Amino acid sequence: MAMTGVLRPGHVAIRVLDLDEAVKFYSDVMGLVETGRDDMGRVYFKCWDEQDHNSYIIREADQAGVDFVGFKVLDNETLNKLEKDLNEFGIETRRIEAGEMLETGERVRFTLPSGHEFELYADKTKVGNGMGLTNPAPWYTQSEHGIAPVRLDHMLLYGPNIAEVKKIFCDVLGFFLVERVLGEDNETEAALWLSCSHKVHDIAFVEYPEPGKLHHTSFLMESWERVLRAGDIMSMNEVAVDIGPTRHGITRGCTIYAWDPSGNRFETFMGGYHPYPDYETITWTWDNFAQGLDYPQRKLHESFLTVVS
Amino acid sequence: MAMTGVLRPGHVAIRVLDLDEAVKFYSDVMGLVETGRDDMGRVYFKCWDEQDHNSYIIREADQAGVDFVGFKVLDNETLNKLEKDLNEFGIETRRIEAGEMLETGERVRFTLPSGHEFELYADKTKVGNGMGLTNPAPWYTQSEHGIAPVRLDHMLLYGPNIAEVKKIFCDVLGFFLVERVLGEDNETEAALWLSCSHKVHDIAFVEYPEPGKLHHTSFLMESWERVLRAGDIMSMNEVAVDIGPTRHGITRGCTIYAWDPSGNRFETFMGGYHPYPDYETITWTWDNFAQGLDYPQRKLHESFLTVVS
Amino acid sequence: MAMTGVLRPGHVAIRVLDLDEAVKFYSDVMGLVETGRDDMGRVYFKCWDEQDHNSYIIREADQAGVDFVGFKVLDNETLNKLEKDLNEFGIETRRIEAGEMLETGERVRFTLPSGHEFELYADKTKVGNGMGLTNPAPWYTQSEHGIAPVRLDHMLLYGPNIAEVKKIFCDVLGFFLVERVLGEDNETEAALWLSCSHKVHDIAFVEYPEPGKLHHTSFLMESWERVLRAGDIMSMNEVAVDIGPTRHGITRGCTIYAWDPSGNRFETFMGGYHPYPDYETITWTWDNFAQGLDYPQRKLHESFLTVVS
Amino acid sequence: MAMTGVLRPGHVAIRVLDLDEAVKFYSDVMGLVETGRDDMGRVYFKCWDEQDHNSYIIREADQAGVDFVGFKVLDNETLNKLEKDLNEFGIETRRIEAGEMLETGERVRFTLPSGHEFELYADKTKVGNGMGLTNPAPWYTQSEHGIAPVRLDHMLLYGPNIAEVKKIFCDVLGFFLVERVLGEDNETEAALWLSCSHKVHDIAFVEYPEPGKLHHTSFLMESWERVLRAGDIMSMNEVAVDIGPTRHGITRGCTIYAWDPSGNRFETFMGGYHPYPDYETITWTWDNFAQGLDYPQRKLHESFLTVVS
Repeated sequence: MAMTGVLRPGHVAIRVLDLDEAVKFYSDVMGLVETGRDDMGRVYFKCWDEQDHNSYIIREADQAGVDFVGFKVLDNETLNKLEKDLNEFGIETRRIEAGEMLETGERVRFTLPSGHEFELYADKTKVGNGMGLTNPAPWYTQSEHGIAPVRLDHMLLYGPNIAEVKKIFCDVLGFFLVERVLGEDNETEAALWLSCSHKVHDIAFVEYPEPGKLHHTSFLMESWERVLRAGDIMSMNEVAVDIGPTRHGITRGCTIYAWDPSGNRFETFMGGYHPYPDYETITWTWDNFAQGLDYPQRKLHESFLTVVS
Repeated sequence: MAMTGVLRPGHVAIRVLDLDEAVKFYSDVMGLVETGRDDMGRVYFKCWDEQDHNSYIIREADQAGVDFVGFKVLDNETLNKLEKDLNEFGIETRRIEAGEMLETGERVRFTLPSGHEFELYADKTKVGNGMGLTNPAPWYTQSEHGIAPVRLDHMLLYGPNIAEVKKIFCDVLGFFLVERVLGEDNETEAALWLSCSHKVHDIAFVEYPEPGKLHHTSFLMESWERVLRAGDIMSMNEVAVDIGPTRHGITRGCTIYAWDPSGNRFETFMGGYHPYPDYETITWTWDNFAQGLDYPQRKLHESFLTVVS
Repeated sequence: MAMTGVLRPGHVAIRVLDLDEAVKFYSDVMGLVETGRDDMGRVYFKCWDEQDHNSYIIREADQAGVDFVGFKVLDNETLNKLEKDLNEFGIETRRIEAGEMLETGERVRFTLPSGHEFELYADKTKVGNGMGLTNPAPWYTQSEHGIAPVRLDHMLLYGPNIAEVKKIFCDVLGFFLVERVLGEDNETEAALWLSCSHKVHDIAFVEYPEPGKLHHTSFLMESWERVLRAGDIMSMNEVAVDIGPTRHGITRGCTIYAWDPSGNRFETFMGGYHPYPDYETITWTWDNFAQGLDYPQRKLHESFLTVVS
Repeated sequence: MAMTGVLRPGHVAIRVLDLDEAVKFYSDVMGLVETGRDDMGRVYFKCWDEQDHNSYIIREADQAGVDFVGFKVLDNETLNKLEKDLNEFGIETRRIEAGEMLETGERVRFTLPSGHEFELYADKTKVGNGMGLTNPAPWYTQSEHGIAPVRLDHMLLYGPNIAEVKKIFCDVLGFFLVERVLGEDNETEAALWLSCSHKVHDIAFVEYPEPGKLHHTSFLMESWERVLRAGDIMSMNEVAVDIGPTRHGITRGCTIYAWDPSGNRFETFMGGYHPYPDYETITWTWDNFAQGLDYPQRKLHESFLTVVS
């Protein structure tokens, strides 16, 4: 009965301007594990502690940004039921056949009112985290190769109609609203943090006129000390940093934001608390948003609020 | 759809030998928040970051140990369905009326084959974590009063028939088996770590001839540094420590175990990883159990393995 | 033979605009221990883990800034010898009688070429760190009251003629130059980090036209997690933060800078390495100063470089 | 004037039973940097963040243990003066010529009343810490190779006549007594922690009937998290662990003790406080020594107290 629907963000497909440069960045600086390349020129990565074949996929394009985001669901029965629920809610879906992405089963794809391509899937080949299933060590060499996040954690997407998006996630897909930021009118929801688990966010949205934009992909670090280490590695490799290290008031998460060589923002993140579906939503008012964004500094960083890919 | 069944360990009821001494210990050393006392002489506590009215309940008795363990479920519909499922599986249940525990709704109680009283409930009054729902701070004074764990995390129970217990949790209540230890025959499961979420354990069982025993109640700490601080506070207050600080190989969790003044073991715990229901079970073989128990030292601590309440 | 001369920064006297507000700030937000007040209206504080009676002294004035900085030397013999050495070097000194500062012995005062009043002294009453000298605990309640730094660590002073200042510290007082930043000409020393111990700095200077200015007083924190906690407390108390949390390239120290209510900058700092007098000086070139200042972000923060008191 | 005498523990020469095994252990598990081998079959190592050519030297022998311990002094003038002082105190010294140890200057050797060979030297070739002297990074790959301590920190030696040893260190060499443990009579000093800096110990002695024994060599780690990591690596490499992770009451240091493959105990250590020569000695009474040894557990670990090499 527990965790019976949507499990977690399973993959995100990102456009990069120069594939070789990006592969080098994600392998050596970010410390992801390359797990495959496909006929379409896409390169597949996973974080060291993830069990499934891939979670971060890049392809070369003229413009940076996000192609699509996929969430894993418990099984095919769940996938079918959710598709039916989506359709009944009025969302058109289409099936992408198994194998279109390496080692990944059939996907149910639809377009969010925010302009993002979103999909659900039930199957992805397990390749393990490199430590086996019998008497495993807590970590290994790969855990210290580059920034080396533990897992893909969540994404923050920018686009229009997030009130509609919220309905789909909360009323159809079973997410709950963990935190939100109100707009200047102190009424409209300007930003939403949504969870399908007891994470402080599995996905988040900010209201924005242009559809389909990516604010950041977030990777989970194991400690505040690992966030500092991530910042060191960014500096050593001349990665462009946006903000941090700092703590968000929103979610309590501790973080650094930076950009990949193509201008896709990513987050190295840790902490937060453990909300459950029975929790009440936390609200950040517009006048106090600066504290929500950068807890120690209470500063509205211009680039953070406006630059997307 | 997500997290639609059993949510989390919601309360545990513990017997102590001297109520005043225990109240002092749990308030000032452990740093729990006392939230009420009832007609039956029970004292109710919660961890500072918990939203619900209570999670740790003590009463005076001639013998230490655990009276019952309760898990919160999503809603009454879930409660009814799970009760029906339990009955169909052959488990007898009984209803305990709302209000029998302070600020707690109706509970569905049954006896596990291990001899433990276990219950499910859907309602408990929200009292908040002391920081409100609008622009909350990440922590406050109470977060540093005593050991001050974030939340009740899990329990490890000792008793017979854990193979039967596993069926109830996995086949009826929707938990999954995260890790297990095999016995000397390298086949029988001697210990089970079960999750209804993406925690490394919401409850755990060890096969043991005597029914209904408590190995420990676990409280979540926010960092390895907070575990060290917990150990300092134990020493300052002459708390009897069993093992730690150390890391478990099993679950990767970092920990100290100690006893309350009545001899009920508790754990101050952090870390671990984030398994999901689609993960495969990790197995610890008997010959390597020492590394699973105390990762740095690889030592089978006699008291840890044999003392229960 | 070891540590036979100047020991450490022993006190700093700071001007504040509103004494009551400042006392409240340094007691409750910074978490210093008030240890006395004198006839001249000065209020004396120490950090919780310091043994001597006082290290941070404030008085009310029309303008914020630093009155004087005092370093403790090993004994009176050392004090006399250093005074003689200073005089021989051409520095005029004057004696301030014992007791002019509470619980503090005779001081040898002189003016640095940078315009700062600097003094040496051998005696200050030991009041202890609150944990006694027999079987002491590692910390106690005061260690978690407010930001609660461990000790006064160092100061960064702005003023002219730092080449002259360096000679006094290195040639007369026995300090060594740990790190330095070169000016735009890549030759002149624009900033100096000086140590009389194996700390990365006991005092630091930046070349600046206006004499006698204070950039910041630095307080030592025990860990990166305590620096984060300091930032949280700053936010909770609406303290104006300048930069951080971040790591300096220079000294490797991890830090937050903020201002007291009067506009005196302070630092909550941890880390760095352990240079000794036989170490060679590390040089930061002008073109890479941004990395030296804010290692992750490589950003020249305007306020940090220009605002002094 | 500052730090004008004995600077720090500069090298320790250790006997191992199997050189190849030991080289492998110290290179790959401990993560020291091999810097040379000499005609006598000795292998030289340094910690990654040390500037001098070597600090840990091993040679193959029939019995484990320590050959000699060397402290670096400021310069040759200091070396000569200290030799004269030692001689006047009644200590016979002899000179070992420059070059007898690789890249190391002339050494002044003498035998301590505890039976240990001890030496002072002023010169050792600087090879740097691998990051250069201009715009250095805070760490690099070697900092994460194996346990990777920052530096050689101190040694604890077992032998007779430590009251005599104390006089030499405190009255001749300028150390001060930071902490001590009293014996059962609550009067005799059973253990001494001595500093020539503001470290909690540069060397320590325990009264013991057999002369010249090694309890442990200590290596400095940067954080409590790095101590945990050290314990993980010990387990991954089947290193025999004695005690820890834990905190000492004595010195407040946080630690794991383990043995190299030959049975020489070493410590991976962090923390403590910052005593100066003007501090008063802290005393641990015999009845509370267990808390001094293992702060959380208050346990007198038999092996820790009796096993030496």
